[in-house]
Amino acid sequence: MALPPEVIELNVGGTAYVTSLRTLLAEEGSWFGEAFGSGDDPATSQRPPQDAHGRYFIDRDGALFRQVLEYLRSPATYTLPLGFTGRDQLRREAEHYRLAGLLELLAKLVPGCITVGYRGSFQFGRDGLADVKFRKITRLLVHGRVALCREVFGDTLNESRDPDHGASDRYTARFFLKHVFIEQAFDMLQEQGFRLVGSCGSGTAGSVTENLKPGVDTEENRWNHYNEFVFVRD
Amino acid sequence: MALPPEVIELNVGGTAYVTSLRTLLAEEGSWFGEAFGSGDDPATSQRPPQDAHGRYFIDRDGALFRQVLEYLRSPATYTLPLGFTGRDQLRREAEHYRLAGLLELLAKLVPGCITVGYRGSFQFGRDGLADVKFRKITRLLVHGRVALCREVFGDTLNESRDPDHGASDRYTARFFLKHVFIEQAFDMLQEQGFRLVGSCGSGTAGSVTENLKPGVDTEENRWNHYNEFVFVRD
Amino acid sequence: MALPPEVIELNVGGTAYVTSLRTLLAEEGSWFGEAFGSGDDPATSQRPPQDAHGRYFIDRDGALFRQVLEYLRSPATYTLPLGFTGRDQLRREAEHYRLAGLLELLAKLVPGCITVGYRGSFQFGRDGLADVKFRKITRLLVHGRVALCREVFGDTLNESRDPDHGASDRYTARFFLKHVFIEQAFDMLQEQGFRLVGSCGSGTAGSVTENLKPGVDTEENRWNHYNEFVFVRD
Amino acid sequence: MALPPEVIELNVGGTAYVTSLRTLLAEEGSWFGEAFGSGDDPATSQRPPQDAHGRYFIDRDGALFRQVLEYLRSPATYTLPLGFTGRDQLRREAEHYRLAGLLELLAKLVPGCITVGYRGSFQFGRDGLADVKFRKITRLLVHGRVALCREVFGDTLNESRDPDHGASDRYTARFFLKHVFIEQAFDMLQEQGFRLVGSCGSGTAGSVTENLKPGVDTEENRWNHYNEFVFVRD
Amino acid sequence: MALPPEVIELNVGGTAYVTSLRTLLAEEGSWFGEAFGSGDDPATSQRPPQDAHGRYFIDRDGALFRQVLEYLRSPATYTLPLGFTGRDQLRREAEHYRLAGLLELLAKLVPGCITVGYRGSFQFGRDGLADVKFRKITRLLVHGRVALCREVFGDTLNESRDPDHGASDRYTARFFLKHVFIEQAFDMLQEQGFRLVGSCGSGTAGSVTENLKPGVDTEENRWNHYNEFVFVRD
Repeated sequence: MALPPEVIELNVGGTAYVTSLRTLLAEEGSWFGEAFGSGDDPATSQRPPQDAHGRYFIDRDGALFRQVLEYLRSPATYTLPLGFTGRDQLRREAEHYRLAGLLELLAKLVPGCITVGYRGSFQFGRDGLADVKFRKITRLLVHGRVALCREVFGDTLNESRDPDHGASDRYTARFFLKHVFIEQAFDMLQEQGFRLVGSCGSGTAGSVTENLKPGVDTEENRWNHYNEFVFVRD
Repeated sequence: MALPPEVIELNVGGTAYVTSLRTLLAEEGSWFGEAFGSGDDPATSQRPPQDAHGRYFIDRDGALFRQVLEYLRSPATYTLPLGFTGRDQLRREAEHYRLAGLLELLAKLVPGCITVGYRGSFQFGRDGLADVKFRKITRLLVHGRVALCREVFGDTLNESRDPDHGASDRYTARFFLKHVFIEQAFDMLQEQGFRLVGSCGSGTAGSVTENLKPGVDTEENRWNHYNEFVFVRD
Repeated sequence: MALPPEVIELNVGGTAYVTSLRTLLAEEGSWFGEAFGSGDDPATSQRPPQDAHGRYFIDRDGALFRQVLEYLRSPATYTLPLGFTGRDQLRREAEHYRLAGLLELLAKLVPGCITVGYRGSFQFGRDGLADVKFRKITRLLVHGRVALCREVFGDTLNESRDPDHGASDRYTARFFLKHVFIEQAFDMLQEQGFRLVGSCGSGTAGSVTENLKPGVDTEENRWNHYNEFVFVRD
Repeated sequence: MALPPEVIELNVGGTAYVTSLRTLLAEEGSWFGEAFGSGDDPATSQRPPQDAHGRYFIDRDGALFRQVLEYLRSPATYTLPLGFTGRDQLRREAEHYRLAGLLELLAKLVPGCITVGYRGSFQFGRDGLADVKFRKITRLLVHGRVALCREVFGDTLNESRDPDHGASDRYTARFFLKHVFIEQAFDMLQEQGFRLVGSCGSGTAGSVTENLKPGVDTEENRWNHYNEFVFVRD
Repeated sequence: MALPPEVIELNVGGTAYVTSLRTLLAEEGSWFGEAFGSGDDPATSQRPPQDAHGRYFIDRDGALFRQVLEYLRSPATYTLPLGFTGRDQLRREAEHYRLAGLLELLAKLVPGCITVGYRGSFQFGRDGLADVKFRKITRLLVHGRVALCREVFGDTLNESRDPDHGASDRYTARFFLKHVFIEQAFDMLQEQGFRLVGSCGSGTAGSVTENLKPGVDTEENRWNHYNEFVFVRD
């Protein structure tokens, strides 16, 4: 059977792939344009050598090429699979193949850690209902590298009380959110590729009737706790 | 050997698959119907080009196609494997192949986070048994995006005390369950594809004899604690 | 080379497998008996069509078939690999191939959650040794679905104090173990395919000299804590 | 091309492997010695049947065979990959192939759980430095199955205070280590294939000035906590 | 098609790879130089035997060879994928192929554990703002093997208060960092291949008005807690 010339078979480091010429030429300026844009006329082609099955040899890792090809098939919508563990390796491939768009995408995915903490209790006094005391959180604190925190939380991040606002310090413990739903904060972290890797809680000390400010419920004071959650993007 | 025409061999992005024509045509309106429903008469067929082994070429990811084919084999009972990490990628495939049923299934699996918390202690006073003090939980609190909480807990969710009931706010800390078995709540979360990613506990402060309400056991008061569990669906 | 007829080559959804006729016929009443027990005489055989390499085509998932074949090779000793994430998918295969034994095995592996908790402290008073205070646990509490708890803990489970004993309620917080070694409990959970996914601890509140019962050591009272461990089987 | 007879190509359950005769005969008394030691003279050979590519058929799992072959290539230094999840399955293969050395190695890797706990605080009184208060741990407690604890901690384990010393009880909560570095204990657990799966902490209760023994710092007493770490080997 | 001689096809333990002669000869003194540097003249070549497809046979593990080849393609920039679980196995391959550079790289990646802990509270007194009380950490304590701690934290590690400074003791609990951002510490651990595997928190005991030093805020004292984080490199 004579294959149409737009079907391209590849042998990448030993792994077989098949794709179309159009896919390979999806991004201008790439190595693929140089190699495969030259046509398949033996006299002028700059294509890689072919094996006995007519597949073009590429001396690069075969497994990572799956992501390269996925990127080329959908440059605008490509995303890394959840839990992808070869970002550094894929960056090396993107450099080799000169895929500017993929490099840009990978550059945005800087690894790092953000911790979210809150001091909380339960609504005893205000509620008036005898049997259900809901969670009460005053502030959601956000800590980490300034740029990373901004990337994740955008305009839900309150920076106004941060004395380091605009400074060159890279890490801060002076951010808090404009809302008090830890689940919303966690969802935003998840959307940006972070996952929860650690959490710890602690209660408070002391006799609750000492130093109690007017209007603060004793029972609410007893249940004060600080919970801290560590998120990481690999 | 002459293969029966209903056996279809595919070369999806370099990965070999074999299936039947019936499987490929399982869902009406899909790309497969258009491509393979046209028969294999070279004059009228719209099938993809074939390789030297007679396999039809498809310029899509070979690994994700396993799920596409699994869906086509059992559209009514197909489920994603536990811990499947390519939902966004699979959605792109479902869009390409125009598989409405698979898209619908994936649309239901929105990622997100739900936290379950409880204030608990042990049954000292009421039990009368000297040696075993069982766990005592008054309320299981549920926090997160309203739609997500409803999807998971259905009619085991008590919304009556939620002042945001019916409102457009997306997150709530005003849900609780109609039962007090955390394991049942955890099982329901697991059934909907959630997994536990974090947990933290804290005790209470204060001298227990202060402010003790009549009928509340001192020892029970001493053991009060708040445990919080974070669940995530990827 | 002429292959002996008892060697069977398969092409399951595109993945190659090789096995023996004896393995395929290991379980009576299965689809394999029907298909391959009919012999390979073209006139009477009901075997699936063969590809150019003589491999019999089966239009089912190629990756899951590895477990199907492993089951057929050792029906009596087959177990799922640790962390296997396709139980629902494998059940669908077992139904398709009509493998009653595999279905029975999978039916036993119901997913679910069990929590183990203990109130503990350290042996200050009784020990008499100044420098080592060992862990002191009075009861190991077990919570979860009744059937699941029984399956895991068998006769190490103390049900006598459970007022729900024999009742139809599915969840209980009234089980405890006949021993106080959390590691033994954890080992039993591990043997049944459970893994620890969450844990939280909390201390107690209050001035320890209040309400102290005779014979209870003050220091022991101070160190009281409740640790809770969540186990899940996927 | 005529292959040298010492190169052996295998088709194990459908997966291709290539190795040398020397590798296959690495362990005396194995199935491989019986099958492949008989030479390849068709008249006397007991080798398995060959496929069209000259590969010897073996009706066993193809994926697990990778470990079997790795063991045969380096019987003295072979170790399981980290996080290997098919130990039971590999044992079945080792039994089938009669690999005594591999069976012995697998027999040593019993699954199980060990918990390490410590009561700790910070060095306020003794230090004399105003600004840094280092961690203070008196004892590292070790709990679990006696044989497992001994295997991991060897002579760093202090058994002298264990009244069950030498007894037949399988679980103990009476071990502690001869040193107080939790990181050293964790490293030893890691070396033996254990991983940390859970951790919980709790503070203490009570007014710190009550019952304070002479020479004990008040501030140190306030910071007392018990941290417990659960390790598992799969 | 005649392949150019610089393209080399390999059959490593049954897995096909393709690469170039230049890649195989990337590191001097390796087994590849000896085997493939000798040319392909049958009279003088020391290359391994070839299969029917012209691929050179190597009797080593096929899966691990992917990393070997990746190293040879980029010796200067090669890194292990995140979560790679076969370091011991890869070391064995590097020894077999005599890849000094890869052995050196693997030697640097010693497994081990580091714990980071901090005593913290919130800034009540000093802040002057009624509604936001930020996190307050005085010291970040670092514990573990001395060499490992130094490798990770470099000159952000304060060793001056360590009485074991320069001693031969392998483990220390006397390190702290020059900054107080736990997220920066976590980021540095992540960069060196560590991941967070456990975390626990605890509050403090006691009536806060007792022993309160002048200038210390009562409320700040109440919220004192110790959080401890366990990091591991596999």
